[in-house]
Amino acid sequence: MQIILLSGGSGQRLWPLSNEIRSKQFIKIFKSSNEEYESMLQRTLKQIRNAGKNISITVATSEYQETILKKYIDSDIKISSEPSRRDTFPCIALAAAYLYDVQKIDLNESVVVCPVDPYVDDNFFESFNLLADQISEDFPLVLMGINPTYPSEKYGYIIPTSTEKISDVKTFKEKPNQQTAQKYIDEGALWNGGVFAFKLKYILNKTQKLLGFSSYDEILKNYDSLEKISFDYAVVEHEKNIKVVRYNGEWKDVGTWNTLTEVMQSNYIGKVQADQTCENLHVINESDLPIICMGLENIIVAASPEGILISEKTSSSYIKPFVENIHQQIRFAEKSWGSFKVIDVEKGSLTIKVTLNAGHRMKYHSHEFRREIWNIIEGSGRVVIDDVEKFVKVGDIIEIPINCKHTIIADMDMKIIEVQIGESIDVEDKKVFLN
Amino acid sequence: MQIILLSGGSGQRLWPLSNEIRSKQFIKIFKSSNEEYESMLQRTLKQIRNAGKNISITVATSEYQETILKKYIDSDIKISSEPSRRDTFPCIALAAAYLYDVQKIDLNESVVVCPVDPYVDDNFFESFNLLADQISEDFPLVLMGINPTYPSEKYGYIIPTSTEKISDVKTFKEKPNQQTAQKYIDEGALWNGGVFAFKLKYILNKTQKLLGFSSYDEILKNYDSLEKISFDYAVVEHEKNIKVVRYNGEWKDVGTWNTLTEVMQSNYIGKVQADQTCENLHVINESDLPIICMGLENIIVAASPEGILISEKTSSSYIKPFVENIHQQIRFAEKSWGSFKVIDVEKGSLTIKVTLNAGHRMKYHSHEFRREIWNIIEGSGRVVIDDVEKFVKVGDIIEIPINCKHTIIADMDMKIIEVQIGESIDVEDKKVFLN
Repeated sequence: MQIILLSGGSGQRLWPLSNEIRSKQFIKIFKSSNEEYESMLQRTLKQIRNAGKNISITVATSEYQETILKKYIDSDIKISSEPSRRDTFPCIALAAAYLYDVQKIDLNESVVVCPVDPYVDDNFFESFNLLADQISEDFPLVLMGINPTYPSEKYGYIIPTSTEKISDVKTFKEKPNQQTAQKYIDEGALWNGGVFAFKLKYILNKTQKLLGFSSYDEILKNYDSLEKISFDYAVVEHEKNIKVVRYNGEWKDVGTWNTLTEVMQSNYIGKVQADQTCENLHVINESDLPIICMGLENIIVAASPEGILISEKTSSSYIKPFVENIHQQIRFAEKSWGSFKVIDVEKGSLTIKVTLNAGHRMKYHSHEFRREIWNIIEGSGRVVIDDVEKFVKVGDIIEIPINCKHTIIADMDMKIIEVQIGESIDVEDKKVFLN
Repeated sequence: MQIILLSGGSGQRLWPLSNEIRSKQFIKIFKSSNEEYESMLQRTLKQIRNAGKNISITVATSEYQETILKKYIDSDIKISSEPSRRDTFPCIALAAAYLYDVQKIDLNESVVVCPVDPYVDDNFFESFNLLADQISEDFPLVLMGINPTYPSEKYGYIIPTSTEKISDVKTFKEKPNQQTAQKYIDEGALWNGGVFAFKLKYILNKTQKLLGFSSYDEILKNYDSLEKISFDYAVVEHEKNIKVVRYNGEWKDVGTWNTLTEVMQSNYIGKVQADQTCENLHVINESDLPIICMGLENIIVAASPEGILISEKTSSSYIKPFVENIHQQIRFAEKSWGSFKVIDVEKGSLTIKVTLNAGHRMKYHSHEFRREIWNIIEGSGRVVIDDVEKFVKVGDIIEIPINCKHTIIADMDMKIIEVQIGESIDVEDKKVFLN
């Protein structure tokens, strides 16, 4: 069985811990068995691993998130990278074509598409086999139904023909208004859990029909101009013969601070002091500043190098327009090779702290409009400056003039204070060379 | 008339905007007429200036705060610096001896002692002349009485013999318990506003009697071993003949976040977004991180390079033990020559951003256990490295080995990223030279 794990999404709803590069599935808030914190992505991958041996995983993600993703996943997990965000149908079509054209997966292999971010029990993933077993010529599409808890306008509604665990689907309706949602619930509807099971050939046929092509190369080439459309609208709403499998365990869509804190095992992460009178307070402090909380009730506090959120819990769902108002460059990012964090911003200069993991290197590159100074504060390695390699260690300073090609190779874990100086400092000012 | 303005105090109650170096009187939270923010110290000095021409001001402060103080006061204001904190009696004795021995003030000159931090109307200071007029041989000590608003345990209580504006004092009691305080209030007691008027000779006599000496040099020499005692306990409680002048205007002891926010003219200072549902929320953001607040009521948020406080307003008075739990070095400070801010802390390295104002210089110094790298990111000036002077400008890098004497002189405003590297990095590791 092939699982396509949808791991995209922008990071606005969980600002300031998520941003363009690090979206919510990478935030480490779940306590794993060994008392370390793990992210939603790590938790989900572990659950899928535990669900069965014959499962092969492909993570469908955006190019932006590819480097951070590689840091967290084992090498046997495949990645399908979208050049841009085009919603779930193009994303699933691309991943399916990748499976067929690149990974040479058989057309009759079962594929289960699953979002990375529902917080669920292990048996959620265990039931994937049951979904796959229901796929047939007559019923080429199988969904997972979740018992709805309120008439949400956010989900698709599946109306089954029976109350059995496995049932035919009478109708499927994407995101109705509240009143209609309530009507559906009264008729016994289930939420669409975002899980879709089908044969690989099914989605490739749909892709051919809807886009006019279905090869990996063609989808990739045309990706940026594809219509933004969800799999639900493009495929599910038009499919007459669908089966649904009911899932009865815990299922939480942890897309907002309010819902996310409901599944956190500890109230405080990071440097936090809270007095005895705090109640239902969650603090996630990824900054290195100490936080003191006093007399707070039903509040979420989240702090990172990007900013600070303090919100009454239910209010936190409405954060998006406020985040959109903040026009600042990304201030921290995890990369496959380490991480960076902006530590000072001035007109004419930018200072960042770069962490480079042992064995990793930066790309060989140059800048047209800024010079850089590397202050090595930890570890040792080698720099290459205009094709000349040199050993460097703690306390060494490397000056990189404008247009000078440069890279650094970490022989052990390294930390660097990088001072960028120039009239125009822009992440786009980067020319990459092979070396 | 001589005014001794008491400007000491540690900064714990208004953490994280105050710290050991910058105590509360330096926090800029009051809107002045020209729409800029001014500090309590600036506000008070302006009010005293407006109160009369024949007033000469001496600020009594701790050595720690002397450099920041110089930044904010005019050159005609005198400073009496305590080598350590010994409570108000030694502090006032030192300042009085300084006035007599160093400033050669006449023994019959009137002295009014006043704390820097009550938030009051202009006529508070205008009434100082009235206090001074009441000083006589029979009544050598005159206090200012404040109408009490609740049976506080924090203040001294003055019980006057009449309800007149000016009255003799029947008794004075320092910090009673709540029950006794209520009894005093029922008897018509007033709060002691911390203002004391006397002739210079009066306090010098008391000093001689209590300490056995009264010269500036001797007080200074013995300062660290003097008993910590307040002026109220040492002098006022033992004085039989006191007069009190009532003050009826606004008087607020803005020593906690709760009381301080009551006198702030604007709710948000710094990068702050708050949604429509926030009520009675005050945010003072001195960090460069954006803050988003949603659905908060009766809350104070304060953020600086030291840390982040989020507190329900009345709870904020109990902050002290939490601040004491935080064991970190001071992360930012304003100095007479500019300012510094810690921007990165690692085992084995510390990175700070130094701002040096035009015309100022660092002391000529060296370090035994750390080397430093100066990355000049703004302005130009001169460095002196082991007695050799050299011009420096943006983009220059200065390496300072261990034990190397160094200083920098700013010819224009300069900003420097200073990377300190060493196994032991300590502010005490500093040898200062004359140059």
